[in-house]
Amino acid sequence: MDEKDTNRLEAFSDGVFAVAITLLVLDIKLPYADSSGKLLGNSELWQAIFEQWPMLLAFVTSFFTIGIMWLNHHRIFKHIKHSDTSLVFLNIILLMLIVFIPVPTALLVEYITHPELNTAALLYSGTFFAMALCFNLLWRYASYKGRLLGQQVDMDGVNKISRQYLFGPLVYIIALAIAWINTPASLIFNLLLAIFFALPDTPMKPGKKDQDPQLPMSESV
Amino acid sequence: MDEKDTNRLEAFSDGVFAVAITLLVLDIKLPYADSSGKLLGNSELWQAIFEQWPMLLAFVTSFFTIGIMWLNHHRIFKHIKHSDTSLVFLNIILLMLIVFIPVPTALLVEYITHPELNTAALLYSGTFFAMALCFNLLWRYASYKGRLLGQQVDMDGVNKISRQYLFGPLVYIIALAIAWINTPASLIFNLLLAIFFALPDTPMKPGKKDQDPQLPMSESV
Amino acid sequence: MDEKDTNRLEAFSDGVFAVAITLLVLDIKLPYADSSGKLLGNSELWQAIFEQWPMLLAFVTSFFTIGIMWLNHHRIFKHIKHSDTSLVFLNIILLMLIVFIPVPTALLVEYITHPELNTAALLYSGTFFAMALCFNLLWRYASYKGRLLGQQVDMDGVNKISRQYLFGPLVYIIALAIAWINTPASLIFNLLLAIFFALPDTPMKPGKKDQDPQLPMSESV
Amino acid sequence: MDEKDTNRLEAFSDGVFAVAITLLVLDIKLPYADSSGKLLGNSELWQAIFEQWPMLLAFVTSFFTIGIMWLNHHRIFKHIKHSDTSLVFLNIILLMLIVFIPVPTALLVEYITHPELNTAALLYSGTFFAMALCFNLLWRYASYKGRLLGQQVDMDGVNKISRQYLFGPLVYIIALAIAWINTPASLIFNLLLAIFFALPDTPMKPGKKDQDPQLPMSESV
Repeated sequence: MDEKDTNRLEAFSDGVFAVAITLLVLDIKLPYADSSGKLLGNSELWQAIFEQWPMLLAFVTSFFTIGIMWLNHHRIFKHIKHSDTSLVFLNIILLMLIVFIPVPTALLVEYITHPELNTAALLYSGTFFAMALCFNLLWRYASYKGRLLGQQVDMDGVNKISRQYLFGPLVYIIALAIAWINTPASLIFNLLLAIFFALPDTPMKPGKKDQDPQLPMSESV
Repeated sequence: MDEKDTNRLEAFSDGVFAVAITLLVLDIKLPYADSSGKLLGNSELWQAIFEQWPMLLAFVTSFFTIGIMWLNHHRIFKHIKHSDTSLVFLNIILLMLIVFIPVPTALLVEYITHPELNTAALLYSGTFFAMALCFNLLWRYASYKGRLLGQQVDMDGVNKISRQYLFGPLVYIIALAIAWINTPASLIFNLLLAIFFALPDTPMKPGKKDQDPQLPMSESV
Repeated sequence: MDEKDTNRLEAFSDGVFAVAITLLVLDIKLPYADSSGKLLGNSELWQAIFEQWPMLLAFVTSFFTIGIMWLNHHRIFKHIKHSDTSLVFLNIILLMLIVFIPVPTALLVEYITHPELNTAALLYSGTFFAMALCFNLLWRYASYKGRLLGQQVDMDGVNKISRQYLFGPLVYIIALAIAWINTPASLIFNLLLAIFFALPDTPMKPGKKDQDPQLPMSESV
Repeated sequence: MDEKDTNRLEAFSDGVFAVAITLLVLDIKLPYADSSGKLLGNSELWQAIFEQWPMLLAFVTSFFTIGIMWLNHHRIFKHIKHSDTSLVFLNIILLMLIVFIPVPTALLVEYITHPELNTAALLYSGTFFAMALCFNLLWRYASYKGRLLGQQVDMDGVNKISRQYLFGPLVYIIALAIAWINTPASLIFNLLLAIFFALPDTPMKPGKKDQDPQLPMSESV
């Protein structure tokens, strides 16, 4: 196997993903007192927590999305063996978009109950669309003529990613269109998208089990 | 030994555990001035710090719990050698619960001196119960028919974990029941639980020393 | 190849870079309500976001700068194989400057629209200048007579870095001079500097492709 | 060389150290407006920054101390090859004290200009003293009869650490005594202590260079 030159790049990226996904919790503040400062009773507190559903739904959606973006990063860097300045440059832009996610998330929480105002939802879905584009750019750059893939390329895996990445930006354009029309629907669509990409037996690993039923599914992630 | 495919998954998880456990400190604010803005004197400051015992006790309990959850994650991933999309999906849900811990912790701090209101304690213990369930699910999925364990399985270690994991959710159901009755008692029960799981010579590694007194106890963690 | 003694030093530094670059987002707060607490409409929100351009420009500049500083750290530690207490000491000072960046960044955001007041811009560019000096010191210390470089030194790579590092502090002195005269210009100059250092085919890796067109460009980062 | 079982324990600890050291910056807030909200002019801003010297001095001291504590952790885990539950337990307590440092740091900043009130300084130095004790406990536990050190022990290195660790808590008792008398003096003493432990050619690596002048100083950190 080729020696990998991207270990520290992956370690640094893992760190940024880990911090970004964890910072999402800083925006969750559950209420515990009414406007006069009196502690909420049991039923009032349950009700107050349930009223925070936009915050909790946005947290779950953004958390899953960053998690799946990490998975995608992991998937493509299994094939990328070498690094150059352009790759680091594209990776920094990608990480900047990941780190930015809490900002449109916080905005979306405020606007989710006002579906007639779609700016926040557009910004939220737009950030995800930009990320999908950036992943594409990074992958096309690294895989073009096998530029950074090393000597022993798993062509099957590489081609599979290249095919999938044709569709990634497309689904996020659909998310953008839904955001134009309806804010809560676009949030739920983004959540379903993240869950869909994370589910096993999606087009992400077609035929793997059929071909090699005995083998552990180590290549599938 | 099988090659491990889970290195980056573990590195990412370690990062999330590390950030989540450290962010707990952001909720500790010691007072230094009275309501008129005058700096507290020596004895007033000591008293003000001691009055923050709910905050400090909750910090210690949540810190130990996340630490022990990391240890559990480490223990089961010593046996898990391969990864697939379902495992990553379950791991993201588990990390989401870990990251969420500061939220019920902050709520508990407000309610600990009002034991007649048990909502916060239920949410706190409920989060831990959900984590225990999630650990079980992840472990059952990975170890079912040795699915993701690799060729050379340490069956003793695997069976030990499987047996222990029958009891994990049970003790957290007890914690939930205590939370229903008495908030401070449930916090202390959770702390004792974390310390118990961390102590050496618990059922976590029965007979290890007796079997191999010369060998370093490398398998015990 | 020499065994590396600097693995944990690099892992710790990667962690600090990753947290510092991610914390930059905590200073981005987009407005969503007017002074009377009323939610902003679509066009008002777009306008309010665009009015935050100093915040967003400063975020992008500091993010790229920390990213490129990480790249520099990575580049020089590819050659540094051993560690001693002085190296750790210099590395801590360097990390302290990295961690400090959000402070002058936040100050710059407030002063960018008041170009007649240059203190914030001087502090911002001054922090970068101190970082460039610190990188130089660390590199000169480690590479002096090959002190910490191990047995098999890539002399070409080492000499290239040493030549480049003559110019690093110089360009940041120019940035400092521009900060004296014009705040927004110095911010943009710093951003261009980061992009310039990140771009491929800069003097950072002269002649690499010409010498070895077949080889992957693994040494260039 | 023995295989190491402590890799993930070190990775997790590195993460906690990296986050804790970086979070220190969250307590640095430079002023930019006077009480009426007017932006400070050049000379006013410089003056306002210089007036924040307690905050900046405390930041530098705590940053160096956490950095040196990381170095100590790194040093002792170079010898510790195996892990058990007690070691993880002691390590969690140690990390809890590291994570706690921003709390007494923030308190100290408020009290540094009131040297007649020594509670904050005692809490600050007391935290460091507890850390020194905890390092001792962890090291004594791991090195007792070579319990967790593996087969090929570097006895010279082990004995050196054991000797040094007799003095560690002692110097922090002195720091505690100085804190009783004078707050700013104890802060500066703590800073000097960190710098002293970080300086090369301290008793930390006696005679290394004399014995093996050709060898890289890889063992010294």
